[in-house]
Amino acid sequence: MSSTHIVSIYDEELKYLTRRISEMGGTAEQMVSDAVRALVTTDGALAQKVISEDVVLDNAERQINEKAVLTITKRQPVSADLREILGAVRIAAELERVGDLGKNTAKRVIAVQGSGMPRKLARGLEHLAELALMQLKEVLDVYATRSVEKAKAIRERDDEIDAIYTSLFRELLTYMMEDPRNITPCTHLLFCAKNIERIGDHATNIAETIYFMATGAQPEGERPKDDNTASLVAAEPSA
Amino acid sequence: MSSTHIVSIYDEELKYLTRRISEMGGTAEQMVSDAVRALVTTDGALAQKVISEDVVLDNAERQINEKAVLTITKRQPVSADLREILGAVRIAAELERVGDLGKNTAKRVIAVQGSGMPRKLARGLEHLAELALMQLKEVLDVYATRSVEKAKAIRERDDEIDAIYTSLFRELLTYMMEDPRNITPCTHLLFCAKNIERIGDHATNIAETIYFMATGAQPEGERPKDDNTASLVAAEPSA
Repeated sequence: MSSTHIVSIYDEELKYLTRRISEMGGTAEQMVSDAVRALVTTDGALAQKVISEDVVLDNAERQINEKAVLTITKRQPVSADLREILGAVRIAAELERVGDLGKNTAKRVIAVQGSGMPRKLARGLEHLAELALMQLKEVLDVYATRSVEKAKAIRERDDEIDAIYTSLFRELLTYMMEDPRNITPCTHLLFCAKNIERIGDHATNIAETIYFMATGAQPEGERPKDDNTASLVAAEPSA
Repeated sequence: MSSTHIVSIYDEELKYLTRRISEMGGTAEQMVSDAVRALVTTDGALAQKVISEDVVLDNAERQINEKAVLTITKRQPVSADLREILGAVRIAAELERVGDLGKNTAKRVIAVQGSGMPRKLARGLEHLAELALMQLKEVLDVYATRSVEKAKAIRERDDEIDAIYTSLFRELLTYMMEDPRNITPCTHLLFCAKNIERIGDHATNIAETIYFMATGAQPEGERPKDDNTASLVAAEPSA
């Protein structure tokens, strides 16, 4: 009877961590989605809202860390329960960084304002963001269900995001070469695209953490963490 | 007698973590320093060496994580000892990312090759890297000594790096506007500068973790995590 009581309090503590992670995930998704919308519609007020929300994730991460230390100290968990708590700490750190990337994207709205972003670029950025957010959403669903198979699948599927990022990167370089007035706004859009591409990386890191929580091991096999633009050289414009 | 024996084995485990973190720190510093040298001297072979070293940090982080889980399970540490182990896990993750940034910088050597980087830009990048590496080196020294006061000081001193990064950012935009042939190499240099600026952020994160390990709390007060270029608009070149 007393032991059941202890177990159920302990379950409450694990549920607290799971719930806070889900909340952080929802906030991070909303921030990124709003940041991209603010960028494409040059909505300064929406950008400001995103910037001010970052503190929510900072505080949530701190609270999750404190709860983790308290729970390990009080319950002295081992194996799966311990991995559960350590995994929550790692996922909270990833989500806090996703929020930072949303905030940095929102900050660039002001530099891009008034530059008349070509429709094609805006669509490219929106599409990139949709894919990255879908990956983040799926990995948070996997966190709720702890499916090892699904975690592995997400980890192996970063390629589409990379392909779109590479094509956006090329396109932005071309715009910059066409007209020097495009250089400043397109530079900021390059960093925005990179921010969104990195959200895909964080989703992949979360998938690896879920795999670790479920199995105690890291998933096998190399995965390409870097994008493909690092050695990309654009064709020079015809004079 | 038996209790002394257990304590000394436990100390060995904590020492193992401290030693592995120091090794990771040394590797990460060397990678970043080599990457910037490869960039400035366009040394493809050195760049390749940096790229191939990344796996060393990936493996070290995995081993530190495994050791942490084992040690918590076997020893069930509380308070300072528990924070010591959790802190090592967090610092290992930061150092693995520093290595990723070195690798990404090295990958860009090929895209910058043959572009004849102006001496002023090369000096700017080298200076930025010196400051970031000094910050990383100092924070690793603080990790060895666990000085809370020094950890706080490092955290509050990211400003110089940001100032140099902002000036490099401006300069790169200017070169791009002067000649469209500069656009591709300068774009890659922008990402390299951003990579190096982010190393300063990771050093700051490590300083915060050391503060947490020593005190069980997060340092108070906001700290500016973002750079100042997000809303920077360059003057257009005179026609």
